[in-house]
Amino acid sequence: MPRPFSLSNPLTISAVLFPNFELLDVYGPLEMFGVLKDRVSITIIAEFSGEIASSCGPRGVADLKIADAPAADILLVPGGIGTRIEVENTSFLNALRIQAEKAGIVASVCTGSALLAKAGFLDGKRATSNKIAIDWVMAQGPRVHWVREARWVEDENLFTSSGVSAGMDMSLGIIEVLFGLDVSLEIARFAEYTWHRDKSVDPFANLQAPDLAN
Amino acid sequence: MPRPFSLSNPLTISAVLFPNFELLDVYGPLEMFGVLKDRVSITIIAEFSGEIASSCGPRGVADLKIADAPAADILLVPGGIGTRIEVENTSFLNALRIQAEKAGIVASVCTGSALLAKAGFLDGKRATSNKIAIDWVMAQGPRVHWVREARWVEDENLFTSSGVSAGMDMSLGIIEVLFGLDVSLEIARFAEYTWHRDKSVDPFANLQAPDLAN
Repeated sequence: MPRPFSLSNPLTISAVLFPNFELLDVYGPLEMFGVLKDRVSITIIAEFSGEIASSCGPRGVADLKIADAPAADILLVPGGIGTRIEVENTSFLNALRIQAEKAGIVASVCTGSALLAKAGFLDGKRATSNKIAIDWVMAQGPRVHWVREARWVEDENLFTSSGVSAGMDMSLGIIEVLFGLDVSLEIARFAEYTWHRDKSVDPFANLQAPDLAN
Repeated sequence: MPRPFSLSNPLTISAVLFPNFELLDVYGPLEMFGVLKDRVSITIIAEFSGEIASSCGPRGVADLKIADAPAADILLVPGGIGTRIEVENTSFLNALRIQAEKAGIVASVCTGSALLAKAGFLDGKRATSNKIAIDWVMAQGPRVHWVREARWVEDENLFTSSGVSAGMDMSLGIIEVLFGLDVSLEIARFAEYTWHRDKSVDPFANLQAPDLAN
């Protein structure tokens, strides 16, 4: 369970974009939160405001620069092949760490946890990441207690999920913590989504890596 | 199986945006296709080029006006609350119908099938939609053979899915038809997505509607 904190009404969610982010890492969780309609307010933030291309082309739009954004109830950090560049982007990582430290809940999807790890935010905490790239992710945070098998991991106010689709399951898990199980089930029903609810069951751990780059 | 047609290399995908589109209807399918990397080329099209807000706020960016866009191998039509306005937008529907008639495969998610129905493209064809709004969708196309229970429906080169998340399952189904089962399984594995592969099994048909607008 997260440490106690007070939520805004509406709940504020800041989702971080960077060049070559993974589409579903961002928009899967935002779909689940977005069904809450007037109960949430979503802001897209990035190192620079404006349009940002995902790894497969389609662009999102950042409303605010990450350095200018106010504290959020939930900070969402996606993964994607662009993380390989961003782990070397010191000014971005510094701003990310400041955002994470002032957020109510910090939630990462896939290799988003590599960014938080390299920013130093995960030191001493339990976290996971996607299963194809986990060795690379672990190398970004040698003082993190990495969990190799979990759909998602909760450590106080930190939620980290496995690869891509796991972000939707984690988001419904966060909604359960904040609003109760009935609300999560209602959202899953609206989105016709079969929620993988048990965070400890990981169908994708310990499989052979497919022939696809992350 | 789709009627015979020749595919481009790379496969061209045009995804249609309109104001108040549903995020996951668009980006779930594009995630699955996007994992094919250099084998696909994704273009976002809309009535007007530029930024377009989804129903929960985050904006996408249209590369081209729908009336100017070349024929696509796959035309993807999402749903969302914005369909309630667009079914009255004759110039948009005319352009959508022209795009659909020249596409190799036409694929809709959720209430996207209401747009195709109102445009007259579904007359005499089998199609489905999401389960919460299906009575409204059916009213948009009285000459369509609507299927009330299916994860997705295939009728020659037309693929229509149930609500929101079903678009990801349908997309993996289209990829299976075009590239083979192994490729679909590889993509699902990469995205850590538990593919609902049987299009006839619909866990969300015949349930009571939740207390959420579509």
